[in-house]
Amino acid sequence: MTNLASAHDTIRAVQWRGDHLRLLDQRLLPTEEQWLEYRDFQAVTQAIKDLVVRGAPAIGIAAAWGVVLAARHGAPMEQALAELRAARPTAVNLMWALDRMKACLAAGADTAALEREAQAIQDEDLAANHHMGELGAALIAPGSGVMTHCNAGALATSGYGTALGVIRAGVAAGRINQVFAGETRPWQQGARLTMWELVRDGIPAKLIADSAASHLMKSGAVKWVIVGADRIAANGDTANKIGTYQLAIAARHHGVKFMVVAPSSTVDMATATGDDIDIELRDTAELLSVAGRRTVVEGAQAWNPVFDVTPASLIDAIVTERGVIEQPTLARMRAVFAA
Amino acid sequence: MTNLASAHDTIRAVQWRGDHLRLLDQRLLPTEEQWLEYRDFQAVTQAIKDLVVRGAPAIGIAAAWGVVLAARHGAPMEQALAELRAARPTAVNLMWALDRMKACLAAGADTAALEREAQAIQDEDLAANHHMGELGAALIAPGSGVMTHCNAGALATSGYGTALGVIRAGVAAGRINQVFAGETRPWQQGARLTMWELVRDGIPAKLIADSAASHLMKSGAVKWVIVGADRIAANGDTANKIGTYQLAIAARHHGVKFMVVAPSSTVDMATATGDDIDIELRDTAELLSVAGRRTVVEGAQAWNPVFDVTPASLIDAIVTERGVIEQPTLARMRAVFAA
Repeated sequence: MTNLASAHDTIRAVQWRGDHLRLLDQRLLPTEEQWLEYRDFQAVTQAIKDLVVRGAPAIGIAAAWGVVLAARHGAPMEQALAELRAARPTAVNLMWALDRMKACLAAGADTAALEREAQAIQDEDLAANHHMGELGAALIAPGSGVMTHCNAGALATSGYGTALGVIRAGVAAGRINQVFAGETRPWQQGARLTMWELVRDGIPAKLIADSAASHLMKSGAVKWVIVGADRIAANGDTANKIGTYQLAIAARHHGVKFMVVAPSSTVDMATATGDDIDIELRDTAELLSVAGRRTVVEGAQAWNPVFDVTPASLIDAIVTERGVIEQPTLARMRAVFAA
Repeated sequence: MTNLASAHDTIRAVQWRGDHLRLLDQRLLPTEEQWLEYRDFQAVTQAIKDLVVRGAPAIGIAAAWGVVLAARHGAPMEQALAELRAARPTAVNLMWALDRMKACLAAGADTAALEREAQAIQDEDLAANHHMGELGAALIAPGSGVMTHCNAGALATSGYGTALGVIRAGVAAGRINQVFAGETRPWQQGARLTMWELVRDGIPAKLIADSAASHLMKSGAVKWVIVGADRIAANGDTANKIGTYQLAIAARHHGVKFMVVAPSSTVDMATATGDDIDIELRDTAELLSVAGRRTVVEGAQAWNPVFDVTPASLIDAIVTERGVIEQPTLARMRAVFAA
């Protein structure tokens, strides 16, 4: 794939091409690298729902381009904003990006101005990732093993990544010498996407079953768990991929440090605590079948929450492009993010 | 399948048929119910290695019948015992059953006597399961939700099950009203086998991703985690399916009780602590492919330990057919199991 060049920071899964949006279909990675083209906001909405594009920052960026497409085609803008906003409930970056586009519209922006705003959202995210990478890596002692969950990489952002940005920067600085990635059932983002990014960058990485994390931590091989976020509440409680909370409990039990890496667009000071975050439940078919093949007896029920909330008390550091918040509390969050 | 009758306790995955052993192929459940026939000990050894039969007690029973097959065909008995013993390293029931058969041989047993001993091992296991079911269920408050991991059911034993035996008895007594089963990556024993057993028995059950357990516990829906064991050390440390340790940490964090259910053949007083238990590492292909299809980028590495050790300090009760050991310690274990 010529679009996925070999340099470390050039995975760009969300690409604006002048009159349409191109998305790398993340459902098919790593076995297929297929690009899909989007020319109207309804199709972008569906792509977000269907996980063609996923990862909180990337969802926000794709939605911003969806607004541009709506404006280009003279679609009813209120409807476009509402439909895009309803595509997925947990990641606040979606709402944040749409609010930015809405404010632009309210200020009388034309299509060209909306396009500049979407590009700014995308460019600022990339710059934030690189800055967070440096800030997060600085917290890690040289020669450490780390663990990550899901994919908070280039694929989940404008490029480079949040948690994987810290890992890339940490490897480059000699602070990280081994990465363990949880496979992240049921959608296997760790197995399919994070391992693809890490192997591609030549970073020493091993895949583990999600349930092997505690056994691994007990061995002493992991100094930090580093994850992204879908929404950070005012008190530092963090919604992220299902299993993150369990890793945070295990990390605390073993004296392993826990780091959340996310741009400020993921911080939602209007949400007081994690209890107020809407957790998406997805189709139980994601658990009852594997690779399209039924693996569980007919008639079986399942429960498929795809995010959970890690309380601030289990988080050692929240890294944003505005700075690092250690042992987050409402007061420390407010010092960086005015309510 | 006429061999799998509809009554609750009549799943018999290991069946001696007079001159050969029949095993229900647990790799194919629940989509196919296929029986395989074994006429020599080498094939039984391979079936244990390949997970045709799995579950600590069932492995021991199958191995005992493997010894009978060796005797029937005049195979070198020392070799048969050694090869069967080496089939899998973690479950001590395998070594225990072979020691029983070896003692029988040393006492001059003929083939008929060996056959009676294997049948005794199988029958005693079934009786133990029913007794443990009653003992374990008595610990659970009426109307509780419980969680289990892997498959410690009829399929993993002579029938009825250890952890699932307690669950069956608890449901019958009105003490358990909802079961959650972790899918148990990478081999999906929870998704494929436990859900099959529970749905078949009409027990209210929901499948969850292994990493959703903590999010579930936080909701208050689970009062006990109930699991089987592959080896219990003298101090109560327990080796069981990978992920069990993580569940025990999560349970303690949430004030959820943790119960291990296993016959006395699983207790190994010659192993001082969990640190002395050999943890099996299996082929990383189990993580790198799903349903025979590669899901992870080529060149990726993985780490695939299939058991872990839960320290006695995280266990509230070990239930055996000899009685219940609460808050297990070496002294409490010794009171029941002389070294």
